[in-house]
Amino acid sequence: MGAPVPMIELWRGGRLESTHLGHAVICDEAGEIVESWGDPTAIIYPRSSCKMIQALPLLESGAADAHGLTDRQVALACASHQGAAIHTEAVTRWLADLGLSDDDLRCGAHEPYDTAERNRLIRADEKPCQCHNNCSGKHAGFLTLNRHLKGHADYVEVDHPVQQAAKQAFEEVTGETSPGYGIDGCSAPNFATSVHGLARAMARFAAATGTGDARDRAMHRMTRAMGQYPEMVAGEGRACTELMRAMGGRVAIKTGAEAVFIAILPEQKRGIALKITDGGTRGAEGAIAALLVKLGALDPDHPATKKRLNAIQKNWRGFETGDIRAAAAFP
Amino acid sequence: MGAPVPMIELWRGGRLESTHLGHAVICDEAGEIVESWGDPTAIIYPRSSCKMIQALPLLESGAADAHGLTDRQVALACASHQGAAIHTEAVTRWLADLGLSDDDLRCGAHEPYDTAERNRLIRADEKPCQCHNNCSGKHAGFLTLNRHLKGHADYVEVDHPVQQAAKQAFEEVTGETSPGYGIDGCSAPNFATSVHGLARAMARFAAATGTGDARDRAMHRMTRAMGQYPEMVAGEGRACTELMRAMGGRVAIKTGAEAVFIAILPEQKRGIALKITDGGTRGAEGAIAALLVKLGALDPDHPATKKRLNAIQKNWRGFETGDIRAAAAFP
Repeated sequence: MGAPVPMIELWRGGRLESTHLGHAVICDEAGEIVESWGDPTAIIYPRSSCKMIQALPLLESGAADAHGLTDRQVALACASHQGAAIHTEAVTRWLADLGLSDDDLRCGAHEPYDTAERNRLIRADEKPCQCHNNCSGKHAGFLTLNRHLKGHADYVEVDHPVQQAAKQAFEEVTGETSPGYGIDGCSAPNFATSVHGLARAMARFAAATGTGDARDRAMHRMTRAMGQYPEMVAGEGRACTELMRAMGGRVAIKTGAEAVFIAILPEQKRGIALKITDGGTRGAEGAIAALLVKLGALDPDHPATKKRLNAIQKNWRGFETGDIRAAAAFP
Repeated sequence: MGAPVPMIELWRGGRLESTHLGHAVICDEAGEIVESWGDPTAIIYPRSSCKMIQALPLLESGAADAHGLTDRQVALACASHQGAAIHTEAVTRWLADLGLSDDDLRCGAHEPYDTAERNRLIRADEKPCQCHNNCSGKHAGFLTLNRHLKGHADYVEVDHPVQQAAKQAFEEVTGETSPGYGIDGCSAPNFATSVHGLARAMARFAAATGTGDARDRAMHRMTRAMGQYPEMVAGEGRACTELMRAMGGRVAIKTGAEAVFIAILPEQKRGIALKITDGGTRGAEGAIAALLVKLGALDPDHPATKKRLNAIQKNWRGFETGDIRAAAAFP
């Protein structure tokens, strides 16, 4: 595997303090590399950055329409949300519509990232439920597909029809046979692919017209749903939400654990995938912002951009201590 | 500057997912390199890993003795604590003994890392105070020295006698003229040095006998105080506290922001300094554990070790997803 290259740097006192290396690919609608950094063949786990791929069978199978899912729910199925009230209420209602409850989820519970909801739980002496898990929207989607496929309750098992459908869609849109899978934080299998494969998949989403076959329509709908409901995809203050808003919803972007980021640019019919090899989130956020700025999709001076790229760092008393910037040769 | 080398890896599903690169040096009492990885001349900010250096003037000047500081307070002066009750109570009492209060600190306030204290604040609808800042023990030490030196109130300014004393001690023990400084999260200046310089300083701490000059006695006392009160240096669950306990207090270790870690090994008269170049804490914790195991100071099978090295990773439902391990060629 080729070496990753410097992408994002933290400077302090006029001196480089830390560096994030990574691989990145910009792909066109034919699946060809437009430009790349590091090694396009590097094998990665997309983690949550591929939730829109995992949700393809939900839409393509007709399950989403059969259950009358709204675009807001479709966006939530692609989300790594922060467990704010708007997210947990939407998941709870969705489960109720299926005649199911929190106990039917298989994602596990964790403290929500949303401060208001976290504090509410602490004050009420309540434990977080599985709805608070950042992946609970994806899992509500899995449960909806599972109802359609009449599978057994343990829908996260790798040989379950829900996950096999996700695997098939994944291999088709990446254009690669996955070399294997890992178990994700939410217990679902996460299939590996190359950075190129992930970018190729995102370029296909970008090129979807909404007038073609079931896959084309599913891809088109998901991209628009994410852009239309950015607050459902992550939450207030988060990179995906703020940067999609900064781009007027015309570009869909999604983060994944261990510093993966993708972007779908329908107007340019381009897909982007990147992985910061140390797994550092600030590196992935800075790098995707840099690539979106390079492609003219994101205003470098927008406050949402400047939180992550050419981002002044302040300490607890509000004094400037340094900044986060793109490395000299990137992008 | 030479390239950093792979030190710590995250594996998932039998596949490498993320890698932390770094520089590390093991130094002997003469200041010579015993072994190194990456570039020993790499310039780094030690951040909080050099708090025992910053506290040297407090002890050497006689200020600590004049104010009757206990070894527990000396450990707290070297700490990045998590703002638990034992830490905030100790700092508050220390300030009161000086006739000072929280308002005299210049470290800024942040939410404590200690869950119990964090939850108490949320339930009581209280804001964190500067005592909760992980550096408040160091700042109580600065204020004590400042009383002795009769300096002005803004003791974090780089030309203040307190910081100039810290700078002089820093350059003397690292054996290098610092190329400059950055402003730390707690507003104090943090002087840069090479990884070798930081390891050399720690070897000097390790070689201190407690029977020599004021510096020798100060170094000896701080190393023992940290080993004797590991809970004051960080807190329950934290790497510094747990690993020092696992080594029976015979080795002092200290983390710094952006993935710096040092170790002081008196029995071997060795000092260690390392920097993970991406700033990832899990990398620094794994790497210091690996070096301490290599030197025979830390049991590789101790639970505190196995939380950070050859550490099984579990997801929200308790399923194993992978592990954190040392890279094949490290150490």
